[in-house]
Amino acid sequence: MEDIRDKVEHLQALIDQGEHEALRAWFEALRVQDIALLMSELDGDAPFDTLFGLLDADRQVRTFAYIDLALQPQILGSLSAARRRAIVGELDSDDRAALFDELEAPQVEQLIADLPAEDREDTREMLAYDESSVGRLMNTDFVSVRPYWTIAEALAHIRTANEKGESVNRIYVTQPEGKLLDALPLRDFILAPLDQPVRTLMKREAVSIRPDADREEAVRLIQRYDLEAMPVVDADGVLLGTVTVDDVMDVAEEETTEDFHKLASVGSVDVSVRDASVWYLFRKRAPWLVLLVFANIFSGAALAHYEETISQAIVLLFFLPLLIGSAGNAGSQSSTLMVRALATGDVSVRDWFSLLLKEFGVALVLGLALALAVAGLGVWRGGLAVGITVALTMVVAVMAGSLIGMSLPFAFSRLKLDPATASTPLITCIADISGIVIYFGIASLVLDLVP
Amino acid sequence: MEDIRDKVEHLQALIDQGEHEALRAWFEALRVQDIALLMSELDGDAPFDTLFGLLDADRQVRTFAYIDLALQPQILGSLSAARRRAIVGELDSDDRAALFDELEAPQVEQLIADLPAEDREDTREMLAYDESSVGRLMNTDFVSVRPYWTIAEALAHIRTANEKGESVNRIYVTQPEGKLLDALPLRDFILAPLDQPVRTLMKREAVSIRPDADREEAVRLIQRYDLEAMPVVDADGVLLGTVTVDDVMDVAEEETTEDFHKLASVGSVDVSVRDASVWYLFRKRAPWLVLLVFANIFSGAALAHYEETISQAIVLLFFLPLLIGSAGNAGSQSSTLMVRALATGDVSVRDWFSLLLKEFGVALVLGLALALAVAGLGVWRGGLAVGITVALTMVVAVMAGSLIGMSLPFAFSRLKLDPATASTPLITCIADISGIVIYFGIASLVLDLVP
Repeated sequence: MEDIRDKVEHLQALIDQGEHEALRAWFEALRVQDIALLMSELDGDAPFDTLFGLLDADRQVRTFAYIDLALQPQILGSLSAARRRAIVGELDSDDRAALFDELEAPQVEQLIADLPAEDREDTREMLAYDESSVGRLMNTDFVSVRPYWTIAEALAHIRTANEKGESVNRIYVTQPEGKLLDALPLRDFILAPLDQPVRTLMKREAVSIRPDADREEAVRLIQRYDLEAMPVVDADGVLLGTVTVDDVMDVAEEETTEDFHKLASVGSVDVSVRDASVWYLFRKRAPWLVLLVFANIFSGAALAHYEETISQAIVLLFFLPLLIGSAGNAGSQSSTLMVRALATGDVSVRDWFSLLLKEFGVALVLGLALALAVAGLGVWRGGLAVGITVALTMVVAVMAGSLIGMSLPFAFSRLKLDPATASTPLITCIADISGIVIYFGIASLVLDLVP
Repeated sequence: MEDIRDKVEHLQALIDQGEHEALRAWFEALRVQDIALLMSELDGDAPFDTLFGLLDADRQVRTFAYIDLALQPQILGSLSAARRRAIVGELDSDDRAALFDELEAPQVEQLIADLPAEDREDTREMLAYDESSVGRLMNTDFVSVRPYWTIAEALAHIRTANEKGESVNRIYVTQPEGKLLDALPLRDFILAPLDQPVRTLMKREAVSIRPDADREEAVRLIQRYDLEAMPVVDADGVLLGTVTVDDVMDVAEEETTEDFHKLASVGSVDVSVRDASVWYLFRKRAPWLVLLVFANIFSGAALAHYEETISQAIVLLFFLPLLIGSAGNAGSQSSTLMVRALATGDVSVRDWFSLLLKEFGVALVLGLALALAVAGLGVWRGGLAVGITVALTMVVAVMAGSLIGMSLPFAFSRLKLDPATASTPLITCIADISGIVIYFGIASLVLDLVP
């Protein structure tokens, strides 16, 4: 789909010419994900009801589910009441909950009232969970069998369930009251003798999760244990639904994007940057910039404090960007390494001290290397005293920047804040202030001592 | 496994006391991923051969596959020749290729010679693919059936294949010479009448990929189409292997980590930061820091160029950190937003111009907001002329920083470089230089004009 723009134009042309049969044939050759992508590119007043009418019932639902969440409400609004009811009724429970989050309360109430009775309660329960919890991600349709059934009975049940459109890659073994005993791959049922009880397949190794757990925990578990789906159980171990790997991949991508943005001091941009308005982007970027402007006043004040030293040796200014820049860069490196390692679970908060010791070593060597790189320039431009000042400052400022940059993500994590709050602009700002103080502090000492 | 340290201590104690039966029982209750995690925490001279001996053959292989790749060679070396042969022979082809990458050539040759004949050729072919290509990720064991077989024949074949330990969640329909026709979920075979030909199940919708494609392409396709596995085919459409979602999730995590590190001007750190040595981290961090030090000399030179202006109005220094800091921060925000959007496919290189226009608007409003925030301070500390200078500089410098930060990722992408090369430290450095020139340029104009 590199040539998506050409395809959208083609689609628009067929719509304008009312070529419904050609559209139907084209849609049949496309995958639902691609149809959804094309529809997302159309104008909001496109004839969506007609377009959906060209798809069979199953593909209508699947196409709708793949449409960008921000566009779903508008498209839903342009559908006939009957089609709207049909599509919403057939959506997977997690897709439905996500859609309802985008709608106004009265509309949600109306749509819930239109749902088949058995889905109404489930939907309300899901919407009660926190937005970032596993409960919102789960699919409440699953196939469960009893441990004392024979494989033949289980397979017969699985076939019936599939007619209802439920996902059957994983079969859940539960007690009659719903308590989860195991999660088994469908293939085990195919390979086992038909007269054997289901119990004999069980390994009781199922990894499960609670609906109120953070969805990032689901990402971690599914990734660690290479699962395709994970059962969600309540406090009594009763199976409520399942979380699948494709949902989890989407969550992982969203969370990672959020971390990227946070590290650059941008608020969470959860729509496409192509679609985001100027005003939306302004609101996501301005708060931290304004905050940092005021923090930077401290750097200015520090500089003003050393005005006299600067006036007497204006050559010092030449080295200022290079010194505070290096401290900030080293600090940014450290904080980014830690933010990412904390996010992937590579390190945890209790590793802080041992990592601090290592960082001390790395920062010392980095500081020395950079000092070596600029000491000659210092001597050449300003004489021995300036050379010594620049070299010493480089070592101390790079170490200060690195150790602060490395520690801040842990500190934020300790305070139950996102480690990525230790953003590069924040670290740079802190490194600027500490760098200025270190530089002119050392300068006033050295310039007094060395002729 | 929050208490991993306690568990490792417990494991070490059982090893020291030679409590093999207790260890065996404990291992049986653990998942292979967790055993692998525990073993990774042991010292290099732990009795790995004995520990693996406590697991049954299947769990030996699966445990080994989950051990951190950097530690696999050492552990392999401590195993008996027979166990080593057995484990390497049973590894999935992608895990084996990854392991061989970590070993020296003579050892790889020996291990390949020990492989079962049918795996030898496959392994050599996989190792011939580029390290970042799909060919390295694929599993060459798969189950294929013919379109003209009945479902009953296909199921019988699937059962035999499973005895050989092959993955059977997806069944591949191929022509006799191996050309891929379709990829079908196993469940379709269970639900279909036994006497029907396989052909009737086919939808010919399989998304496939070439072995020489970049592995990031596999991530994108599997994510877009919500696949559990994707077939890998050669130029003639012959099925070579499959790429599974769990491998792809690992790749996505690695690639994302690389982007995080690049954005902070850190080379790709592909081992755990907990295990990385001081020297390793130094080598990953020093090159860009040194490069940026020299780039920062331009900022110094710019400052030196305006020495006279500064001497005459030293109050200007107070506002320097705040102005160049804001330009750098706004630029970092823009570049990070673009780097991430390019990585997720949210935007592509051809969107640059329309995004530039939007960025122009956002940066203008941000610049005006920040100018408003500091103009009063400028007037208060330095009088009207300084207030005007500071406000004007803020608008122009923030716009310059943002537009450069926004455009650079596209420029790098155009040059076939990673967009994340437009790192925050690089943008900050450029914003510093341009900010200094803009500030003192505007200052010399305004201070001449306004009394």
